[in-house]
Amino acid sequence: MSSVFGNKIHVSIFGQSHGEKIGCVVDGLPAGEAVDLEELRCFLSRRAPGQRGTTPRRETDEPHIVSGLLNGKTCGAPLCVLMDNADTHSGDYDELRDVPRPGHADYPAAVKYRGFQDARGGGHFSARLTAPLCAAGGILMQLLARRGVLIGAHLLSVGDVRDEAFDPLLTDDDTLDKLKEGFPVLSSDQGEKMLEKAEEMRALGDSVGGLIECAVLHLPVGLGGPMFDGLENRISQAVFAIPAVKGIEFGEGFSASHLRGSQNNDPYRVRDGQVTLLSNHAGGILGGLSTGAPLLFRAAFKPTPSIAQPQLSVSLSRMEDRELTVRGRHDPCVALRAVPCVEAAAALALADLLL
Amino acid sequence: MSSVFGNKIHVSIFGQSHGEKIGCVVDGLPAGEAVDLEELRCFLSRRAPGQRGTTPRRETDEPHIVSGLLNGKTCGAPLCVLMDNADTHSGDYDELRDVPRPGHADYPAAVKYRGFQDARGGGHFSARLTAPLCAAGGILMQLLARRGVLIGAHLLSVGDVRDEAFDPLLTDDDTLDKLKEGFPVLSSDQGEKMLEKAEEMRALGDSVGGLIECAVLHLPVGLGGPMFDGLENRISQAVFAIPAVKGIEFGEGFSASHLRGSQNNDPYRVRDGQVTLLSNHAGGILGGLSTGAPLLFRAAFKPTPSIAQPQLSVSLSRMEDRELTVRGRHDPCVALRAVPCVEAAAALALADLLL
Amino acid sequence: MSSVFGNKIHVSIFGQSHGEKIGCVVDGLPAGEAVDLEELRCFLSRRAPGQRGTTPRRETDEPHIVSGLLNGKTCGAPLCVLMDNADTHSGDYDELRDVPRPGHADYPAAVKYRGFQDARGGGHFSARLTAPLCAAGGILMQLLARRGVLIGAHLLSVGDVRDEAFDPLLTDDDTLDKLKEGFPVLSSDQGEKMLEKAEEMRALGDSVGGLIECAVLHLPVGLGGPMFDGLENRISQAVFAIPAVKGIEFGEGFSASHLRGSQNNDPYRVRDGQVTLLSNHAGGILGGLSTGAPLLFRAAFKPTPSIAQPQLSVSLSRMEDRELTVRGRHDPCVALRAVPCVEAAAALALADLLL
Amino acid sequence: MSSVFGNKIHVSIFGQSHGEKIGCVVDGLPAGEAVDLEELRCFLSRRAPGQRGTTPRRETDEPHIVSGLLNGKTCGAPLCVLMDNADTHSGDYDELRDVPRPGHADYPAAVKYRGFQDARGGGHFSARLTAPLCAAGGILMQLLARRGVLIGAHLLSVGDVRDEAFDPLLTDDDTLDKLKEGFPVLSSDQGEKMLEKAEEMRALGDSVGGLIECAVLHLPVGLGGPMFDGLENRISQAVFAIPAVKGIEFGEGFSASHLRGSQNNDPYRVRDGQVTLLSNHAGGILGGLSTGAPLLFRAAFKPTPSIAQPQLSVSLSRMEDRELTVRGRHDPCVALRAVPCVEAAAALALADLLL
Repeated sequence: MSSVFGNKIHVSIFGQSHGEKIGCVVDGLPAGEAVDLEELRCFLSRRAPGQRGTTPRRETDEPHIVSGLLNGKTCGAPLCVLMDNADTHSGDYDELRDVPRPGHADYPAAVKYRGFQDARGGGHFSARLTAPLCAAGGILMQLLARRGVLIGAHLLSVGDVRDEAFDPLLTDDDTLDKLKEGFPVLSSDQGEKMLEKAEEMRALGDSVGGLIECAVLHLPVGLGGPMFDGLENRISQAVFAIPAVKGIEFGEGFSASHLRGSQNNDPYRVRDGQVTLLSNHAGGILGGLSTGAPLLFRAAFKPTPSIAQPQLSVSLSRMEDRELTVRGRHDPCVALRAVPCVEAAAALALADLLL
Repeated sequence: MSSVFGNKIHVSIFGQSHGEKIGCVVDGLPAGEAVDLEELRCFLSRRAPGQRGTTPRRETDEPHIVSGLLNGKTCGAPLCVLMDNADTHSGDYDELRDVPRPGHADYPAAVKYRGFQDARGGGHFSARLTAPLCAAGGILMQLLARRGVLIGAHLLSVGDVRDEAFDPLLTDDDTLDKLKEGFPVLSSDQGEKMLEKAEEMRALGDSVGGLIECAVLHLPVGLGGPMFDGLENRISQAVFAIPAVKGIEFGEGFSASHLRGSQNNDPYRVRDGQVTLLSNHAGGILGGLSTGAPLLFRAAFKPTPSIAQPQLSVSLSRMEDRELTVRGRHDPCVALRAVPCVEAAAALALADLLL
Repeated sequence: MSSVFGNKIHVSIFGQSHGEKIGCVVDGLPAGEAVDLEELRCFLSRRAPGQRGTTPRRETDEPHIVSGLLNGKTCGAPLCVLMDNADTHSGDYDELRDVPRPGHADYPAAVKYRGFQDARGGGHFSARLTAPLCAAGGILMQLLARRGVLIGAHLLSVGDVRDEAFDPLLTDDDTLDKLKEGFPVLSSDQGEKMLEKAEEMRALGDSVGGLIECAVLHLPVGLGGPMFDGLENRISQAVFAIPAVKGIEFGEGFSASHLRGSQNNDPYRVRDGQVTLLSNHAGGILGGLSTGAPLLFRAAFKPTPSIAQPQLSVSLSRMEDRELTVRGRHDPCVALRAVPCVEAAAALALADLLL
Repeated sequence: MSSVFGNKIHVSIFGQSHGEKIGCVVDGLPAGEAVDLEELRCFLSRRAPGQRGTTPRRETDEPHIVSGLLNGKTCGAPLCVLMDNADTHSGDYDELRDVPRPGHADYPAAVKYRGFQDARGGGHFSARLTAPLCAAGGILMQLLARRGVLIGAHLLSVGDVRDEAFDPLLTDDDTLDKLKEGFPVLSSDQGEKMLEKAEEMRALGDSVGGLIECAVLHLPVGLGGPMFDGLENRISQAVFAIPAVKGIEFGEGFSASHLRGSQNNDPYRVRDGQVTLLSNHAGGILGGLSTGAPLLFRAAFKPTPSIAQPQLSVSLSRMEDRELTVRGRHDPCVALRAVPCVEAAAALALADLLL
């Protein structure tokens, strides 16, 4: 059940990078919810290839909803979104079934599936599968927004180029809205430098990692649960579905390990008749439950493993050493296109807890 | 279903910090598996209070197995472990139902459960619940060890005092075995300094955060799955069940965001007729699947929120500001006792995927 | 995950017939729900042994709630109920590990668990495990009743002695209330004959099957779902957890196979401004959804397999034929004590869908 | 999560009767399993409309596998099957959104989905959705057959016309193979009478119910589990997903309620060095576990609710009485086409337990 998420809103994702179609089924949606296709297309276009700093592979990523929608509204039946895989160059990948690309799932997948895996473009392990993840998440974000819950993310860093961080308390709807237009950074100067960094890496035949920071606003206090079903548990389970994510932290996260309790605790005060937090080191989560402050987390992306330089690998069939040069078109920094993916993954977790 | 984990090996955890009993039910265990109670007691004693640098609260944490075991072996029926809550001072916590402790789940729990939550000692949100987590995990670690899979963790840091890190490739059974005796660090000098740091914090009425690093050895190649059921997804879902965890990273983790692909990719070579990795930046996981190299992850713990200093809070009933001084006995660094908890959480995730 | 039920209200049942304790964990209960222990004891006493026509085995079945309850109300944490196995005569069952009782799970369990199963009294397969099922179900029935949903069942037949059936439309709260006092039949004369039939079977060293009919009143219209999560799917999954159930039917059930559409369809009329059904062949369910009419189903119980007569069996260790005489104390008709079990199983399914 | 089944082999079904596409996603299939498309087409053609005694609606039901298959073998990625809804006459159903058809889900669905349901042809509640159920089940039957497990069903009755029953012990591969060719009955004479009965009902503008009996051969002894995950629990949960099923019984089923233990118990003997059952009243299941004898169950189908006669209904918008005449093309006996659906539902349950 590896590509299935959720207890109440249940998302099943299918497809391979170079298969005929990719898509998702979303089961458990309430009936009568409008799905704005134009808004969904906009959302999907934010992860689409062909933007500055990304792979030239062209996919229209047109979401084709074939069930669950009637006159633009959910009808209570499972909603299925299909997308075509139009622009595949499978020939690029012929060697890869035998010679695994370092940093990709190729080798352990070959062992797990005993050679039957779809190795073309990484098959079901490809970042291409974040398209249906975004389709499901983009639809759920529309439902969440209707309930006042906003999700927005930005590139926090590309290599050592760093954007400003979200203000833990003051990040608001405006902040998130602005990020959805153009390159997703708070400081456009830093965004420019990130793109330069990505282009520099591409020119070197190399790649670079990055960080994405995500904020969720207006969650009701108390959402989540103790132990295994808390906000951190569920969001992390969803976010690690995005290829290349190797770490996640909430609020202060790893920095909290250096702090004292007297520094890290967020004091309470009554303001305008409401319980308010004076700081937000907790990232809006205590005991797996939302505190009412902005929920904040950061995901760490490793550098794109597909690089143009020759690398050391092996032939699995001959069990002998090989040198491999990965062909094909690749993003020099996966994080560049992953901003909406992080939002979508968060939406899966939050919709499953909230709806 | 917040305190329930797993698809195949199904763990249900119950109890509150100051309730009558705490415990767990483990469903789906194969029959005929020996459970060594003495070994389980040893494992549980590693998280028990009363050790150097920890809270003086005394709990025997004697695991009482009341079902699922016959003549020392699993019989295929669900295994239930009970533990008594002997040494509770509920009077210490009377104020807390109304005045939430900063950094604890008190406030969002009061909202979520509309005032009906068990506020004594944090109730079901208490770190006390890591005792049955460790009971379940300790039993599963015995089954995993029988299949060759070893799990071991150490304190990587307490505040800014840092232990050596695990060697990504050379960490072996010996390394892990040694950690189970005495204070769980690779460098005993650094361990001594960590304890001093904890005592210093206690003296200041303050607390400090820390890091725990965990290694899993000898996983079969290909364990895990793509998307939502990968090793990172499942381990993180389990590890965030430990109170105070605010971040998790695998392999290079957050550092990978600074690396280039040419640095971060782990090259393959054939050695002794086997596919071998020359480095292990991936922490033993690619595409959610085990690569055969040691699985390595780090969890970040925030400082214990219960500190002896006065803090700003509110009265929920009167909606007015209050100053709060938390009484009771508390660990100055939760990470000190959390090392077996991290191992146990990893065991839940791995047993569910492996058995 | 065999002894685990539910998606939202999650019940985990543990224990063996002659183990130390049996019990259940109920996770996902809303907070602030009163649990009336006296009412729960009454409910459990309806399935307890020692009544007329049942086994003389004595169990107090005192439910001991060790977590999840604070001042008589649920606190949002998982609720654990323990019960002691006081009166076990394990010596009675020594032969059974090797010589399986016909009609019991002994043989397939011995194969499944490779001889490690707890064979004493049938272990986890024993009808004894309906005690914690009833504990969980009895608590959930209190929550359902608070929301207006009433569940009540009666013995519809013992062998060929048959009680009146529920009126498909007119069965009301009074009907169900009366069944909870004394022997659970609509016609006390027929009840008397059922007890005579059971005693007759006991005298012959034999046993007999029976039917239980269950009604659920005041479900909201539209509860349930299409396909796998409909009322029939979920209730049947729960009811087959009761040992000896071999069939279930809703509304006309098997009789509907003889009817014409013009006979079986339930016409609609508007009465007092509400949509009303003029008949209830559907048993209150269409398309897996409640129609508003009483939900009605019948469960078929096979005769108690433990009979005093010699039976043909085999020695599993020697692989040779054996004659077996089952000793111990047994109900001549399991259905006699199973009425609250059927109510409890229905409560698990309905609470999971409704709460 | 209503249209989702399974813990290990996870099936998600989507689509509405008159929507653009219907289909299913099967997640968790082992890699390297051949899927014979021709055999799948044959299987699907057994439930397709347009056969004798069935609706004249024409659907090619061509299964289009768009993911999860590579060179005719599963690749470990989720397998998605799409089918087109070509021949829809939605105009036939315009009235039905407001005037619910007796015996259909129309009314409770209108309440549940607050009028947003897809009422055309019953939407997601339509028997049309058994096409993707059969696609998933037909693929799983190929995997089960490769492991020796055969599933076969026949029409046991149409109204009061009754076929011979399966021999509880002697039903073998040949018996099942023959049923897959032509009309699925053991006695072709009785089959002829069933078709006559169906045509008679069509001529009357009426419909009739029926029974389907299903056998599963060569299950390993001990498959299944106690309590909620037994063979009866899981098979019944799956079979009630087929519209019009109102009852299920295993082995003697309801007849067992009339039997004595001495009659119903199946004695054991050693034959050819193997434990053998001398009778099979249990239908191959004891304690939720397979005994090694043929697994036998019967499902009761109500008469098709769509009949040509005028029926009493209501206008939901005006809350007033209406007379309704259902137009469209309908099977006079749903059981006629449901034989492969029952096999498919059983396959979902068994594959989830076995693979």
